Amino acid sequence: MAELRIDELVYRARHLKNPTVVGLDPRVELLPECVFGGKKDVPRAIYEFNKAIIDAVADIVPAVKPQIAMYELYGSRGIEVFERTARYAKERGLIVIGDIKRGDIASTAEAYAQAHIGEVNAFGESFTVFNEDFATINPYLGEDSIRPFLDVCKQRGTGVFVLVKTSNPGSGQLQDIHMADGRPLYERVAELVNGWGKEFIGAQGYSSVGAVVGATHPAQTKRLRELMPQTLFLAPGYGAQGAKAEDIVSGSMVNSSRGIIFAYKNDRYLRSPDDFAKAARLAALDMRRDLKDIKI
Amino acid sequence: MAELRIDELVYRARHLKNPTVVGLDPRVELLPECVFGGKKDVPRAIYEFNKAIIDAVADIVPAVKPQIAMYELYGSRGIEVFERTARYAKERGLIVIGDIKRGDIASTAEAYAQAHIGEVNAFGESFTVFNEDFATINPYLGEDSIRPFLDVCKQRGTGVFVLVKTSNPGSGQLQDIHMADGRPLYERVAELVNGWGKEFIGAQGYSSVGAVVGATHPAQTKRLRELMPQTLFLAPGYGAQGAKAEDIVSGSMVNSSRGIIFAYKNDRYLRSPDDFAKAARLAALDMRRDLKDIKI
Repeated sequence: MAELRIDELVYRARHLKNPTVVGLDPRVELLPECVFGGKKDVPRAIYEFNKAIIDAVADIVPAVKPQIAMYELYGSRGIEVFERTARYAKERGLIVIGDIKRGDIASTAEAYAQAHIGEVNAFGESFTVFNEDFATINPYLGEDSIRPFLDVCKQRGTGVFVLVKTSNPGSGQLQDIHMADGRPLYERVAELVNGWGKEFIGAQGYSSVGAVVGATHPAQTKRLRELMPQTLFLAPGYGAQGAKAEDIVSGSMVNSSRGIIFAYKNDRYLRSPDDFAKAARLAALDMRRDLKDIKI
Repeated sequence: MAELRIDELVYRARHLKNPTVVGLDPRVELLPECVFGGKKDVPRAIYEFNKAIIDAVADIVPAVKPQIAMYELYGSRGIEVFERTARYAKERGLIVIGDIKRGDIASTAEAYAQAHIGEVNAFGESFTVFNEDFATINPYLGEDSIRPFLDVCKQRGTGVFVLVKTSNPGSGQLQDIHMADGRPLYERVAELVNGWGKEFIGAQGYSSVGAVVGATHPAQTKRLRELMPQTLFLAPGYGAQGAKAEDIVSGSMVNSSRGIIFAYKNDRYLRSPDDFAKAARLAALDMRRDLKDIKI
């Protein structure tokens, strides 16, 4: 089997003493003027922006998480920038977590798995497409929709983070529904994720099958840590969505998007828009300090 | 408000006496040699294939449903073909249902909604990106993740089909979980979909908020029809996945992908690969005959 990406991710987080994942969720209305270079070309500007952010944080954070929706927003040219962003981040030694939240019936899930964390075949040749190390996936369709991703993880050493309990305020509407046995639905999903992950435990003690667990639900998160003891959590919700360091359980990679990439807008870092990348670095250093007690 | 796409879809299905949706799920290993024109360029071949299929069925079916995973498989160039396929289908008068199954937190869902069934803004200008009439979406994140799609539907007259009960064999693992009141989870999702759709009922009697209900579960489908009386169903599972005409309830648009687009591989239509489009037309005509008793 190929070297496991989960081991690389955990190793990097420990080595850098930093569980931060920088969310690359560019938004045109927040981009500094300088990345446009006088042109009204949003995808091009996004790539310039991402490149500068990646250069500014590559030596202090273990991973980036581009949110594909922000690229899909601009159609095929946006997706091209998603591809190039992932490639550049990997060149700079970062682990890439594609926040794609895909989920479909098995024959379709196979296509998503090959494109994002595997290889695609045509005319007897194999090639990578998006070449992410990890992808986030949605479990609503059940295990047969997850299995094609696990098969690819097995072949390639890549990984997934399955949505268990999301960070949004309305996540409870379905995820918290009480089952016949009195427990909330997300606990059942957690048990499934724990089971799927058992055959994927890496040398560093975590499974290639991770879980998305919103940091905005601290009580549930502690329970989920018990149900999934060897599962790395990807925790959105820190910063802009309100979660704090004390809400994070051990074994969590903590995502921040706006709080880092658009730090130049924050009075605390008071920087000219031209220095957006420096502001991002300062914010990432502050976040590392804030999260220094999180154990991976 | 713009003219409602749900009214157009229902009108076309009634006028053509055909509830068929042709799934445009191209697979390289099933494409006939002729669409390659001697070149080893899969995205280009897919577009040639789709164009011929669309030309062959545009006057007998109301809608096509491109499955975006089959395009995403080839990265940005594949997505470009998805864009061009949607555009060409609309030029030929077909309704386009983007089978994207997206679902994310509100600020991200907004980007998906704008890209797929809405408009994107940059520099004070608005433009369409994928320009689908409908998109399929995943409800696991709850109502706040659905609302941005509904906002766009309201502005633009487009629509969604929310996953309620999917067609795959393992769909029951989460969707059928018994809730504290003894009912399966998908019934709760159905009630939500019915509620969301109430303010979107069109002149033809159906809501712009539709539901994906797999035709492979006939008993559940009947119950879901009761719970969502004004909801148009998008029913996958006919043909290759095993569902038959007698399994379909009224008010269902019935998808067939392989059974139509790759009919040239079926002995019944015995055609040379060069006549793949003619075979698709014959299969679509057979499907219309088979579904003649389905009321929309």
